[in-house]
Amino acid sequence: MAGTNSERTMIAEGPVVILVNPQLGENIGMVARAMANFGLAELRLVDPRDGWPSETARAAASKADHVIDGARVFDRLEDAIADLNFVYATTARSRDGFKPVRGPTVAARTLRQRFTAGERTGILFGRERWGLSNEEVALADEIVTFPVNPAFASLNIAQAVLLMSYEWMKSGMADEAETPFQAVEQTPATKEDLFGFFGHLEDALDARGYFRPADKRPRMIENLRSVFTRRAMSLQEIHVLRGVISSFDRYRRKENDDND
Amino acid sequence: MAGTNSERTMIAEGPVVILVNPQLGENIGMVARAMANFGLAELRLVDPRDGWPSETARAAASKADHVIDGARVFDRLEDAIADLNFVYATTARSRDGFKPVRGPTVAARTLRQRFTAGERTGILFGRERWGLSNEEVALADEIVTFPVNPAFASLNIAQAVLLMSYEWMKSGMADEAETPFQAVEQTPATKEDLFGFFGHLEDALDARGYFRPADKRPRMIENLRSVFTRRAMSLQEIHVLRGVISSFDRYRRKENDDND
Repeated sequence: MAGTNSERTMIAEGPVVILVNPQLGENIGMVARAMANFGLAELRLVDPRDGWPSETARAAASKADHVIDGARVFDRLEDAIADLNFVYATTARSRDGFKPVRGPTVAARTLRQRFTAGERTGILFGRERWGLSNEEVALADEIVTFPVNPAFASLNIAQAVLLMSYEWMKSGMADEAETPFQAVEQTPATKEDLFGFFGHLEDALDARGYFRPADKRPRMIENLRSVFTRRAMSLQEIHVLRGVISSFDRYRRKENDDND
Repeated sequence: MAGTNSERTMIAEGPVVILVNPQLGENIGMVARAMANFGLAELRLVDPRDGWPSETARAAASKADHVIDGARVFDRLEDAIADLNFVYATTARSRDGFKPVRGPTVAARTLRQRFTAGERTGILFGRERWGLSNEEVALADEIVTFPVNPAFASLNIAQAVLLMSYEWMKSGMADEAETPFQAVEQTPATKEDLFGFFGHLEDALDARGYFRPADKRPRMIENLRSVFTRRAMSLQEIHVLRGVISSFDRYRRKENDDND
């Protein structure tokens, strides 16, 4: 999809993503891609195992070059978050200590509020094998953790970054039901439109002797109308259905002409 | 984390995930892992390019073996969804047609309601390169699409499945602010606890001549107290702080003993 994006708004703002001791370049790349998908841009790496820059990371980033190129490397976590005002630590494990524990939706809303107020914020993600140490978590203001299957909790860092980035994007939407594109605009049908359709259908069926025997007619009409009133139809849908009836009503089945 | 999971509840229910023409075994494996993380279990593959079973898929699934082992392969999408009642199609592109377009939160809530009502549901994900065809989308009841960075929309199928699975998990939570573990339980401090702490601190400082000159004392006390009333403290936090004061108050700095 990236090919047709040149004229579209590039969102690149919000919390800094800080990866502590990331091991695989591929994971760093997938983190960059996840960030770019949801409008985050600032990536910091604390002591990446295989060094930096990394061609593996760039390849896995699927053209999120602005994130890869802007990534900064630090020796110590303390330095990587020195300029920030508020930091979340992500962890899957309960920790001793007084730090508040939030779900991703609440954490994203908090980050959005602080961002809007002009604060610099960040989210820490631990190493692939065992996450963040207690000392690293202690440097953060609050903890964020994901609701996962108790018997299968194996989110990797790229997945964790994806979820937080996604929640960040959602936290900026006026309404979470909002979608980037909508269904084709339709006009709700009035009852008059609907009754016109009923008349068309019933007339066409009547002409074929559909309503037989005569004493069953009221019930048959009732059932027929029920099918089409289960949900409010649009005018466009009624037009489609009237086209169908006209087709049945006016034209004969071509391949059966001989047998009619 | 999977090693300590044996005694924990394995969640394995909810919508079927249907991948149409998936190309890379690795992506199928990451889909299985994402599903398992958020409690989904039923995977169907329509005409996977590299055949099935796939060792690449199993390796990438990170022990989500129950999803891989249970995966079923179909030649046609129609057969893969034949037994379902309600199906979403995921797409990043606007389509012509009357189908309602939903965001992931609303879609997950709809799937949860139908699941609770006993319906069989599914979510379609398209091929890596170009998603679902219009004909495939037409087989679904509604469309679901993700809020993404307009200038960088490159979610892969594993990421899309992760987000829908995550929203599915959240849709089953009584409260989205719920977290799998909580901060250490703390008792909110009463004002009496707080005033006791103020007395302790101010007495220790007073003994050192901290409040000088005397006419600044009220303002200095006011500022000091402000620091500790910006947020409601817990009793545990007050205990920590009183320990700090006691330590300063009772003991001298060891390495400086000679100079004191």
